[in-house]
Amino acid sequence: MMRSKKFIQTQNRGIGIDPGFGRCGVAILEANKLLFSTCLVTDSKMKHEDRLLFLGEELGKIIKKWRPKSIATEKLFFNVNIRTALKVAEARGVILYESAKADLPVYEYSPQAIKIAVTGYGKASKSQVETMVMRLLGLKTSPMHDDEMDAIAVGITHIASARGIW
Amino acid sequence: MMRSKKFIQTQNRGIGIDPGFGRCGVAILEANKLLFSTCLVTDSKMKHEDRLLFLGEELGKIIKKWRPKSIATEKLFFNVNIRTALKVAEARGVILYESAKADLPVYEYSPQAIKIAVTGYGKASKSQVETMVMRLLGLKTSPMHDDEMDAIAVGITHIASARGIW
Repeated sequence: MMRSKKFIQTQNRGIGIDPGFGRCGVAILEANKLLFSTCLVTDSKMKHEDRLLFLGEELGKIIKKWRPKSIATEKLFFNVNIRTALKVAEARGVILYESAKADLPVYEYSPQAIKIAVTGYGKASKSQVETMVMRLLGLKTSPMHDDEMDAIAVGITHIASARGIW
Repeated sequence: MMRSKKFIQTQNRGIGIDPGFGRCGVAILEANKLLFSTCLVTDSKMKHEDRLLFLGEELGKIIKKWRPKSIATEKLFFNVNIRTALKVAEARGVILYESAKADLPVYEYSPQAIKIAVTGYGKASKSQVETMVMRLLGLKTSPMHDDEMDAIAVGITHIASARGIW
């Protein structure tokens, strides 16, 4: 695959993010290695602004520690209810803000583009994405959270894409 | 008016914000005095994340300088197109984030609540709101931007409301 070649040749480091205010997946990749991933989780009993605060501050720490050179994130999608979509957008604003503070260029990929990049099939199931993510990165165990997996998948997409400048 | 009494008695300082990524109105009020207002404007040629960066950093400076004790903002509304609404929500996320960093409690008011608080009439026109804002604050000249006026209006609403803890 053309993709694999680029995947292996790419040397730099980037961060993949699956935005959310309750659960936000974060993954640090360098070429075809997963260096770090986590899911930033906030309690639904917290005030919304405090959830955003936690998210932004934790993300800021991760960026400072791992020093990625660009950020890849899922495009906003509209197939959830509008109230939730707006809250996710608020979280996304905080993510973009912390990225801009660290002078990271932002790249966006649609859910379909991510599935194609990872599995070769735009309508792949979650478990197909998971299987391929594990194979591409040589992972023995799966990340615990869907959101963490999604963050890794968007990171892989960025590396594999023609826009991949990592 | 009951409202006027409370308006005059309130001593503390707060910030009213009309969220936006292209134009964001900001007003600092203390009791019935307008101490400062501005409209943070970003060029549409700027990258979206850079607009958010400018907005957040400028707002952070204003909060640091004026030290308000709470923030009042308009509730999200849905009567614009969804793409714009999501971008405004991203800006709003940055605003809430900077507020949470400064440990400011956030209060939200609907456009209707703002019109009622300022003019006594929930369907007041923009010019009616403007006239009453100028009268309540003893302003001789009107703020240049609608967004600045809206920020002042939501600030007045907060002071006038039963939730007004400034």
